[in-house]
Amino acid sequence: MNKQGILVVVSGFSGAGKGTVMKELVRRYDRYALSISATTRSPRPGEAEGVDYFYKTMEEFRAMAASDALIEYACYVNNYYGTPRAYVEEQLAAGKDVILEIEIQGALKIREKYPDALLLFITPPSAEELRRRLVGRGTEDNDTIARRLARAGEEAEGIEQYDYLVINDELDACVEATHRLIELQHQKASKNMELINQIREDLKKISEGER
Amino acid sequence: MNKQGILVVVSGFSGAGKGTVMKELVRRYDRYALSISATTRSPRPGEAEGVDYFYKTMEEFRAMAASDALIEYACYVNNYYGTPRAYVEEQLAAGKDVILEIEIQGALKIREKYPDALLLFITPPSAEELRRRLVGRGTEDNDTIARRLARAGEEAEGIEQYDYLVINDELDACVEATHRLIELQHQKASKNMELINQIREDLKKISEGER
Repeated sequence: MNKQGILVVVSGFSGAGKGTVMKELVRRYDRYALSISATTRSPRPGEAEGVDYFYKTMEEFRAMAASDALIEYACYVNNYYGTPRAYVEEQLAAGKDVILEIEIQGALKIREKYPDALLLFITPPSAEELRRRLVGRGTEDNDTIARRLARAGEEAEGIEQYDYLVINDELDACVEATHRLIELQHQKASKNMELINQIREDLKKISEGER
Repeated sequence: MNKQGILVVVSGFSGAGKGTVMKELVRRYDRYALSISATTRSPRPGEAEGVDYFYKTMEEFRAMAASDALIEYACYVNNYYGTPRAYVEEQLAAGKDVILEIEIQGALKIREKYPDALLLFITPPSAEELRRRLVGRGTEDNDTIARRLARAGEEAEGIEQYDYLVINDELDACVEATHRLIELQHQKASKNMELINQIREDLKKISEGER
């Protein structure tokens, strides 16, 4: 695969299970590269540098932004999150499809800079199902769950600018549906102008030879 | 299926086999409705009114255009071709995906009026393969084949505005690839705002109940 890869931006209601879908996608298909964000927030228990995030001080983060080393960054609940440019561009050039999991705010900035990026929004089949999943975890009290649900609703501003909606009802089906959407993106006419121009040139040559 | 159907515009190099692909698609899946064009050209041997085209006099065609009964029309090799509006809109409203097989010129007019239309361009895998198919038919002399090949090359102006390229290497694979592209179009975020808004509303209600 020598063609430039596709930049895939994945967002979704918090609790929609997008992290699990992304990890499974990367595990199943080695054409995908998962971009890791830089953040100023502290690591949570169980998180590791370079696996979950690249942890930066505010000063380091500002220096990255100032030197254009981030393709987008946004502030979210008092911490900064950004997408390091080098990894994304290296992987795209190598023909890998690069997956970013980011908030809508950042996603729409990506769309401006990379008009060919594919924007996917992952949603549970219903609000009730999202509530059931959060309650089912048993790790959060009712008040926290209520806050997360309320925030999930607010997160959907701008979603009509996404390309596709992916319903996460059952993990396996959701992973495969996401994979197919990315695969089909390679059939975009704008991604295949080289082939088209080759055919047009050859048609001209052949028709001249035929006369 | 109560949702509005999708308008699918199919174009392609002449000799790419798009007619066969479309007929097979409609035969396999009854969710598709094939739009039949109106034309001022005379029926060719074997063609039938209402099957291949609706044959109109120049006067009748002009009256249709004047009364806005055509969603697009174009002149092609001295004859007019147009898409009757009533059938397309009835079928879309009934939830059918409507397939139009038209030239690039008409396709780009459809895109302006129906921004959600899906534009597909069908191409043989190479120019050489297109030549082989035309020669293989044995019905045309070299000069006619040369003219068709030359015209095919000229037909590709504007193709970068199409959504997807579909390579017709083998009929069955091409039919299924086209079907999948249309199916996925139903997952467009802009086609699912009702579901999204429902989830957002429910999230608000549930989170208020939870507190």
